[in-house]
Amino acid sequence: MGKVYLVGAGPGAPDLLTLRAARLLESADVVLHDALVSREILGLAKRARFVDVGKRYAKVSTEQRFINRALIEAARTHAIVVRLKGGDPMIFGRAQEEIDALAAAGVECEVVPGVTAALAAASALEVSLTKRGVARTVSFLTPRVGKAETASEWLPAALAADTAVLYMAAGAGPEIARALIDGGKPPSTPVAMVESATLPAERRSLTTLGRLARSPATKAEGPVVVCVGEVFRNAVQEIAIEPAQLPQVNEHR
Amino acid sequence: MGKVYLVGAGPGAPDLLTLRAARLLESADVVLHDALVSREILGLAKRARFVDVGKRYAKVSTEQRFINRALIEAARTHAIVVRLKGGDPMIFGRAQEEIDALAAAGVECEVVPGVTAALAAASALEVSLTKRGVARTVSFLTPRVGKAETASEWLPAALAADTAVLYMAAGAGPEIARALIDGGKPPSTPVAMVESATLPAERRSLTTLGRLARSPATKAEGPVVVCVGEVFRNAVQEIAIEPAQLPQVNEHR
Repeated sequence: MGKVYLVGAGPGAPDLLTLRAARLLESADVVLHDALVSREILGLAKRARFVDVGKRYAKVSTEQRFINRALIEAARTHAIVVRLKGGDPMIFGRAQEEIDALAAAGVECEVVPGVTAALAAASALEVSLTKRGVARTVSFLTPRVGKAETASEWLPAALAADTAVLYMAAGAGPEIARALIDGGKPPSTPVAMVESATLPAERRSLTTLGRLARSPATKAEGPVVVCVGEVFRNAVQEIAIEPAQLPQVNEHR
Repeated sequence: MGKVYLVGAGPGAPDLLTLRAARLLESADVVLHDALVSREILGLAKRARFVDVGKRYAKVSTEQRFINRALIEAARTHAIVVRLKGGDPMIFGRAQEEIDALAAAGVECEVVPGVTAALAAASALEVSLTKRGVARTVSFLTPRVGKAETASEWLPAALAADTAVLYMAAGAGPEIARALIDGGKPPSTPVAMVESATLPAERRSLTTLGRLARSPATKAEGPVVVCVGEVFRNAVQEIAIEPAQLPQVNEHR
């Protein structure tokens, strides 16, 4: 019986993988990976067979059961099985379902943490999510998982923290901004959005809740995090004094 | 004029450094590091001069001004300056003060994200901080920075999120538990504490808010994160059925 490693692939850039993750990929017999993990990262696994278990366009629940079964099956026939997830496995990675399925099947499992998207976005923006006298609490949340849900599920955590980072927020910016304003956040609150953080296609945009609420939803090619809070005040002001470089609605630096 | 890299050293284990961080250490001329960064990690910087700017036992504000000056000075005389911080620089790392000081002095700066302690703790516990149907919001906070403060500064964010992770919580467990219960969290809420996550000295303990609130404050050698939320329910129940292996108050696995 083999062992399954749930490995965080980090935010995108291949050199933001951990040394442990790189070493495990090099020795892996099978790699089951998400749609968002790049070819360059997969290229580290020279000996491995690859299974793409990306869930982007599939039904969530069916697909998860398939992945659980594929992991157990892989561990029955191979020594080192790497389950590679974008970012960190333990935050919005649906890792628990895989850990529990493996435990129930008697398959040994180990989790290797990774750099999560919020921290990659903060690095890209050069803005710390916490700041003395400004922000001592940070919330990470996602505005949508599944259907038929309302902002009431995520809004309290976003409102209560000094800095809020919303994962899987592509196209949801205006809706997020309206919910936060309705919840009592001032329209002047700074917002920073980062798409495809740390990749060549990275796009950063700085705005305020009020402007974002009135703007049309934009399409994104890669994953988007929306960061909200006073820590972004200086960054937003800096771009505000260089209007010539900026389009009207989203201020890309 | 040199360049300063604010680099996350990760949670402790040397192989949880990113590839980028390892490469930067190898080429560094000077490394300014925190007290918590291990000898093994510093050992990667073969060419560098080391400056220990650990703040553990010093006055915070004076010390920060000294660090800012030391960084600018180092960049005036060396090409590659690495400022190495435990975990990720952008969360409870006081990075903004250094970024701003470097910008004001005209020194180029780049941030390299790292694996933050909360995610290392989740990996060690094999419990995902988010879980479908149980937890979709996570807050990261610290119960103390500076003096003369009350729980009211961090409590709302801890109460509003499904999962709360409290950084720099060594010795503060009972106080945190009492504040959360006073704030309305049920005493039966599961708690997981991890000291020195990912290091050989790692210690995990599982309990509930109610038990923790009644227990004496314990000393810790390394950094401690306290994790609170229903996602830890199964982990706490598992250890609860093996009482013979456990001390009375803190259940170390």
